[in-house]
Amino acid sequence: MAPALELLEKPVEYLPVKAVSAISTRASATVLANDIKLENTEKHQRVMNVFRAFIADLCQQYGEGHAGSPMGMAAIGIALYKYVMKYSPGNCNYFNRDRFVLSNGHACLWQYLFMHLVGVESMTLEQLKSYHSSKLDSLCPGHPEIENEGVEVTTGPLGQGLANAVGLAMATKNLAATYNKPGHELVNNMTWCMVGDACLQEGVGLEALSLAGHWKLNNLCVMFDNNAVTCDGTADVANTEDINAKMRATGFNVVDVYNGDSDVAAVTSALVAARSSEKPTFINIRTTIGFGSAKAGTADVHGAALGVDEVANVKRLFGLDPDKHFHIPQDVYEFFSDIPGRGEAHEAGWQKALAKYQEVNPVLAAEFALRVAGKMPEDWTKCIPRKEDQPTAPTASRKSAGVVTNALGGNINSFLIGTADLTPSCNVAYENKVDFQSPELRTACGLNGNYSGRYIHYGIREHAMCAISNGLAAFNKGTFIPMTSTYFVFHLYAAAAVRMAALQGLQQIHIATHDSIGVGENGPTHQPIAVAALYRAMPNVLYIRPCDAEEVAGAYIAAIQATETPTIISLSRQSLTQYPQYSSREGTIKGAYVFTEAEGGDFDVTLIGVGSEMGFAMQTRELLLKNHGIRSRVVSFPCTRLFEQQSREYKHSVLKPRAGKPTVVIEAYPSNGWERYADASVSMNSFGKSLPSKETYEHFGFAPESIAPKVKELVEEVRRDGIGILRGDFRDFNGGLRIGFGH
Amino acid sequence: MAPALELLEKPVEYLPVKAVSAISTRASATVLANDIKLENTEKHQRVMNVFRAFIADLCQQYGEGHAGSPMGMAAIGIALYKYVMKYSPGNCNYFNRDRFVLSNGHACLWQYLFMHLVGVESMTLEQLKSYHSSKLDSLCPGHPEIENEGVEVTTGPLGQGLANAVGLAMATKNLAATYNKPGHELVNNMTWCMVGDACLQEGVGLEALSLAGHWKLNNLCVMFDNNAVTCDGTADVANTEDINAKMRATGFNVVDVYNGDSDVAAVTSALVAARSSEKPTFINIRTTIGFGSAKAGTADVHGAALGVDEVANVKRLFGLDPDKHFHIPQDVYEFFSDIPGRGEAHEAGWQKALAKYQEVNPVLAAEFALRVAGKMPEDWTKCIPRKEDQPTAPTASRKSAGVVTNALGGNINSFLIGTADLTPSCNVAYENKVDFQSPELRTACGLNGNYSGRYIHYGIREHAMCAISNGLAAFNKGTFIPMTSTYFVFHLYAAAAVRMAALQGLQQIHIATHDSIGVGENGPTHQPIAVAALYRAMPNVLYIRPCDAEEVAGAYIAAIQATETPTIISLSRQSLTQYPQYSSREGTIKGAYVFTEAEGGDFDVTLIGVGSEMGFAMQTRELLLKNHGIRSRVVSFPCTRLFEQQSREYKHSVLKPRAGKPTVVIEAYPSNGWERYADASVSMNSFGKSLPSKETYEHFGFAPESIAPKVKELVEEVRRDGIGILRGDFRDFNGGLRIGFGH
Repeated sequence: MAPALELLEKPVEYLPVKAVSAISTRASATVLANDIKLENTEKHQRVMNVFRAFIADLCQQYGEGHAGSPMGMAAIGIALYKYVMKYSPGNCNYFNRDRFVLSNGHACLWQYLFMHLVGVESMTLEQLKSYHSSKLDSLCPGHPEIENEGVEVTTGPLGQGLANAVGLAMATKNLAATYNKPGHELVNNMTWCMVGDACLQEGVGLEALSLAGHWKLNNLCVMFDNNAVTCDGTADVANTEDINAKMRATGFNVVDVYNGDSDVAAVTSALVAARSSEKPTFINIRTTIGFGSAKAGTADVHGAALGVDEVANVKRLFGLDPDKHFHIPQDVYEFFSDIPGRGEAHEAGWQKALAKYQEVNPVLAAEFALRVAGKMPEDWTKCIPRKEDQPTAPTASRKSAGVVTNALGGNINSFLIGTADLTPSCNVAYENKVDFQSPELRTACGLNGNYSGRYIHYGIREHAMCAISNGLAAFNKGTFIPMTSTYFVFHLYAAAAVRMAALQGLQQIHIATHDSIGVGENGPTHQPIAVAALYRAMPNVLYIRPCDAEEVAGAYIAAIQATETPTIISLSRQSLTQYPQYSSREGTIKGAYVFTEAEGGDFDVTLIGVGSEMGFAMQTRELLLKNHGIRSRVVSFPCTRLFEQQSREYKHSVLKPRAGKPTVVIEAYPSNGWERYADASVSMNSFGKSLPSKETYEHFGFAPESIAPKVKELVEEVRRDGIGILRGDFRDFNGGLRIGFGH
Repeated sequence: MAPALELLEKPVEYLPVKAVSAISTRASATVLANDIKLENTEKHQRVMNVFRAFIADLCQQYGEGHAGSPMGMAAIGIALYKYVMKYSPGNCNYFNRDRFVLSNGHACLWQYLFMHLVGVESMTLEQLKSYHSSKLDSLCPGHPEIENEGVEVTTGPLGQGLANAVGLAMATKNLAATYNKPGHELVNNMTWCMVGDACLQEGVGLEALSLAGHWKLNNLCVMFDNNAVTCDGTADVANTEDINAKMRATGFNVVDVYNGDSDVAAVTSALVAARSSEKPTFINIRTTIGFGSAKAGTADVHGAALGVDEVANVKRLFGLDPDKHFHIPQDVYEFFSDIPGRGEAHEAGWQKALAKYQEVNPVLAAEFALRVAGKMPEDWTKCIPRKEDQPTAPTASRKSAGVVTNALGGNINSFLIGTADLTPSCNVAYENKVDFQSPELRTACGLNGNYSGRYIHYGIREHAMCAISNGLAAFNKGTFIPMTSTYFVFHLYAAAAVRMAALQGLQQIHIATHDSIGVGENGPTHQPIAVAALYRAMPNVLYIRPCDAEEVAGAYIAAIQATETPTIISLSRQSLTQYPQYSSREGTIKGAYVFTEAEGGDFDVTLIGVGSEMGFAMQTRELLLKNHGIRSRVVSFPCTRLFEQQSREYKHSVLKPRAGKPTVVIEAYPSNGWERYADASVSMNSFGKSLPSKETYEHFGFAPESIAPKVKELVEEVRRDGIGILRGDFRDFNGGLRIGFGH
């Protein structure tokens, strides 16, 4: 990739650091990049001065906000936005743009102000001034939000953005390997990621960095705003590792910039070098938090305004008028005035290349166009097994899901399917899969791949797997549908990333197997008692527990149709009875449906069966009739969220709450949340046990012989005393959740 | 610390590798440690052969289990259990024992079998054979469990054990710095941690390693079973970093062992060296998974039995009788027969040292004895502010909590109080705090400390913070009560660790501030919408949301009294109205209580106010009366779990579910779970917004002017049509949780 270093300032003989000499460290002089000489200029210094003063003003207006990092990162911004990054302010979404992620999201003013300076029209002065205001849907919220023009991913929870950036870089690699042809480069953008200390401390960031190094994602450049200050003081209070050595060991090319406060040339040089690196690049840029203020270099300027007097002092130090607020002189605008035109040229060039490509590679071009439009081939529905082809013998739902994944993965390039080192358990390795790997990799076991591969070995890194998936999904919504796979309990490791997917409306499918206490001898550490409660309560997540292969089919259809929503398909390790005469994909898509009415129509009780525990409901139904003459209807309830989208009429037709009969839910999780639909539960009141599958269920009362007598008693009580007695008395048949219980 | 290398085998001239020559790599000859020569002997080889065959038998009996790693780690076990580790098989809990953590918990058979060989009485042959059986409460579950003798922490979810080990090593350092006096060493144990590939890939492990290096925990030794195989194939499928360089950069002393399959002497040498290192030690031990089997070195032996024929082949290769199963010859027992006596001597020595110490340092000795007994000084109650001293002006609950934390931290050595880089926000930095740091540390900001310090800067590492806290709490239950602090939303990063605390019954207090949508401009990424649902459903967790300072006091009392339970105290960033005439610590400890009855006694509706949103309930009550003549009683509901422990009578007296009147809960989380107590909710149906505190609440309908009309309508509907109409029709006043919604 050629550097974008096109327009240069007139070089000057010396760096005018007078305004900042009190703080600034040494400044390098010039840098050669691509045979073009870039020197530090007075204009750079002036732009930085104005930039920093403006940031100080923005935080001062409401007396709060994050001023320190944006002020420290001014030189980095000039290097990136003026000299290196390929983008188009007039069309922030043009497909082959460089992606930029501000992983230290609290420094968002930096990004907003540069967007304004380079000519993103929506980013007006008025918008900038709405930072921390009560303006609804401001384009300048406290952290960058994906809904806003020019923002690739929502950041804030630290480490996430860095992992997202790895996903964005992967997306480019995969598209390039799939669609680029000699002489026809459709996709070749870089991903630039700004990080602070935190992103390099958070586990999710570290996991993602390991993978970026392993995959040799040389289109990724991580820029470390090394201001050496965090909320608690200087960063060495909690971190004294040798970050450069660590990053080299992780597979990165490491470049140092010693005066990131002023040395635009050095930063530019490092960024330009990243474009031609054979490895991902890590640029360690020493900056000064709150540069220019009296408290520069301290934690006091991390998350606070400077104070009125200090803002004035900063302006004086920078040779600016302290009485002018929110002031950007015309010459500063002019400095960036070439950017929109350059951006248009980039985009036009890409459109031209695309047109040529369409002539030469019409079939691939059509698929590419579909994916650029965020669409899947319409015949994806053929990948879902027909009802008549479903198995009838007991089958683990992870196996049933594997059939669908196999078809989707084998036929549709949109699916990038990965696993956190559980290929043998998750059944997601589709036939003839090609692994996403650096083509240079030679593993000891012979399992290699290339960048067109769509099967991803994430290693034992669940959190990064899901956070990287967010980057894949955000590259261009709909171009990829990332799938992940691990045991359901480990979606707790990944929860913060799945939450970010939900918040951003990113479609993805999480294959979550081993979803019950029937996982066998792995024991209580692997039995996901409370995890479902999280995902059922999390906005914009579909958590679906299918009970058999037919419901699995429904789960996939729902997941693929939910284009703005992450879906977790929750699956069993153990074999499940198939119910071809009862189960329904259409019902699954409605979240819950009548599995079977009572024989003869009249009923005494409604049993809710859920996913891997449906068998207990059906067996209990049989036993209740045989032993006690009690007539049960059974409702299958794979997804509470989907059910809540249905009409009141539909809901009542399924649950019949006004029939004066009790409803009992059977699920091996805590009952929390089921009270909305049921009067009693057979549920878990503690963590699980290390026992074989069947014995674990029995130990906790999941057996028709244990359940039926309790239901009978409830039915009789209601017959005797009326349904009113259930109000305020939800029955946890297995006892409520206890404390001081260990397991 | 002196090495425990006391008893030696007769040296032989060469290493008899004939039995394993096909697999074994090079073998070092001898090693000098503390002037004592240890050589590899035929006896070592024989013990390893028997050990490996026995593991193969154990997995074969049920045709499953993890055979590969235990077989590969045999030499490590001899080095550790025979030569280096200080412990007492007759009293696995003696206080100053070395701690051992099997972070790769699936390799548990290794630990179980060594425990048997060294003479832990409970670990019988019969127990060993119950691995993967249906025996309830087997001592040999699929992962080590803390309830069982000789197990320090429950492991299984990868990376957790490694972080626990860091906590265990910290515990030693802190006790040693607090109680050891010249000539009187009460606490000087090592912590040995076995890890596999996964623990070094998982973020939580990486975070913890950074801290161990930063703190220079030279009493920690991490032993890497580097068999280079994971479930998906060879480890290089997902990881090609230079682990030694990375560990060195992280602050570890790195030692290589090239033939960890056979070279007991080399492993022993490395372990002995770890005892006198100035840094924590990382031993990179190359082993062969499934050593001795035909599938050795492949993923096929990771999580499976070898097969009957292959077990026989292994025995033949090792010169053992293939027809003998579960056979341990007498000479192998004899090899370990010195261990119990040596352990008794260790313990007796410690008891003697303790007695001397008590003479010389009676005051410290008394405190130490109390902590060894797992108790706190009885006057901890003095640290809880008296009701009459509570503030009456609006106060953020994080500030009220700070008052209590300040007193506890300042007065009681049991409290180790940490923060994930949010000292300025969490109010947990008690007066005159001393930081837990290496005494050699010199930070740029001048914030230093020593090992007796009890304020912990965890950096931006929430997951490790909580997982390390588990190690602190597990060192000796009750000796430490770890406290952590961060924003509540980041307890999602840490959720897998908090879950492990709950599973293990480890007491700890998590200070979770910024617990509502009122966090201000940090926006939706920082507004913890669904996190509470997780912790309310998680067994053995207390999630407490106090509404004012008095309830904060109750929350701390509950947390301290719950000695087998982690507690999350959920706090506001924003100021909260204080209700001295209504709020009650005693009520808080019961989970919910009547805050105020309706004026005059009769009521139309019960409003449930929760934590940071109590103000809305009280304001709505006022407005309902003023504008509509509707009489409300208000229930404060800080903790669902505590409430569920109360009697049915108490519960009914608080909620009055049979009075025929509706109940409405007001909380800025999803309503999931409240259906048990309420008929309607003012709750969150989506993620939050980037707005100031008050405006965010208003935007989502949290304002008395929005709430009162909805409650009025409900009351009128019930008056008209009876309470029965609410059955099956839970009302989410703000709408239910939606999909495809972004935020």
